[in-house]
Amino acid sequence: MANNITVLWGSGSPPCWRVLIALEEKNVRDYNSVQLSFEKMEHKSKQVLDINPRGQLPAFKIGDLVVNESYGACMFLEKKFQSQGNRLTPECITEEGHMYQRMFEGQTLSQKMADVIYYNWKVPEGERHDSAVKRNREALISELKLWEGYLQKGPGPFLAGKNFSLADVVVYPAIAYLFRFGLCEERYPKLAAYYNSLKSRPSIKTTWPPTWLETPQGSDLLKDL
Amino acid sequence: MANNITVLWGSGSPPCWRVLIALEEKNVRDYNSVQLSFEKMEHKSKQVLDINPRGQLPAFKIGDLVVNESYGACMFLEKKFQSQGNRLTPECITEEGHMYQRMFEGQTLSQKMADVIYYNWKVPEGERHDSAVKRNREALISELKLWEGYLQKGPGPFLAGKNFSLADVVVYPAIAYLFRFGLCEERYPKLAAYYNSLKSRPSIKTTWPPTWLETPQGSDLLKDL
Repeated sequence: MANNITVLWGSGSPPCWRVLIALEEKNVRDYNSVQLSFEKMEHKSKQVLDINPRGQLPAFKIGDLVVNESYGACMFLEKKFQSQGNRLTPECITEEGHMYQRMFEGQTLSQKMADVIYYNWKVPEGERHDSAVKRNREALISELKLWEGYLQKGPGPFLAGKNFSLADVVVYPAIAYLFRFGLCEERYPKLAAYYNSLKSRPSIKTTWPPTWLETPQGSDLLKDL
Repeated sequence: MANNITVLWGSGSPPCWRVLIALEEKNVRDYNSVQLSFEKMEHKSKQVLDINPRGQLPAFKIGDLVVNESYGACMFLEKKFQSQGNRLTPECITEEGHMYQRMFEGQTLSQKMADVIYYNWKVPEGERHDSAVKRNREALISELKLWEGYLQKGPGPFLAGKNFSLADVVVYPAIAYLFRFGLCEERYPKLAAYYNSLKSRPSIKTTWPPTWLETPQGSDLLKDL
């Protein structure tokens, strides 16, 4: 491993997928890639805890440096390999600023998505309330409408403008996750068009979650949103 | 306003404070600074909504570009004014990678802090549970111990190493917030030392929340953590 990079990851996890996309975009392929299973609780294994004491995936190490936080790993890779692979930061500083805005708004989208999808997993049974479920779903719908509007208004076709950037690297996996969980393409046509248009991008196609390929049918949890 | 920058902010809010610190560090002082009141709900005013449709502070605009997300605004300012003021990105790429790791872990710290401090504000009365309060407090304690350990192990004295960096810009306001809400300095001596050592840094001293200066006594909500 010339780069001395190790990535421990789980299939389908947006944070893991981000890092795999960034590595492909930067043309970094000579790394130690270890797919682990969330179902088997391998994210709590010693192998992971040695790199990521939080017991979460991804776990990312390059030499002695650990950058487990997925946004951080993507930013680091962009800088470390700045003259290699695809440039992921717009040359125009204004477009770069817009990229940051969308990247960090993407965290709110991911959070609101997680509040809905993981509700039963995160909230113990005795603490669950239909009113909270309803509120979380409404918050996610409002958030989705914002993003539908962003893609409508443009400039596009990418999240920060005319160039594929770190904003797409970090937000695309969340958008794909929404559709995997049944988001209605007809109700969110711009998000669906964005989602479908990037499926064939080499970095995304190559890193498509293997468990999604094995089981093409996802969940319908979000179909009524 | 030569820079054509507008910042709408509220006193004490860590996201707002980050941006004010970054502006000071980059020696950007010629901007339109508007302090608004959360108590008076001014973050939901038209003035804010015109820049930040989420109705949140900060609202940050430079020319026609809007970067309301505080992490994004700090990163943008560092890049836009890269040869002005203090450099906030370490020259060493490994230290830069470490900076990203701490920056994004800082979001987890902020989230766990918010889960405790804002519990009654965020969770409607009929949905509150003592078990959730207890779990949130325990999660925050674990998180605080992690950070106490980071500062213990070093290299320090700053969060990413020997240089003050964007990690300090974005995480310091959260740490100050913890102490404002009564975190015990004796129980978290490394966090307290870090907190106190940076109080006199010009960018931090100048931007210290004006409402905290008016009312030096904070809350004791976190005193037993």
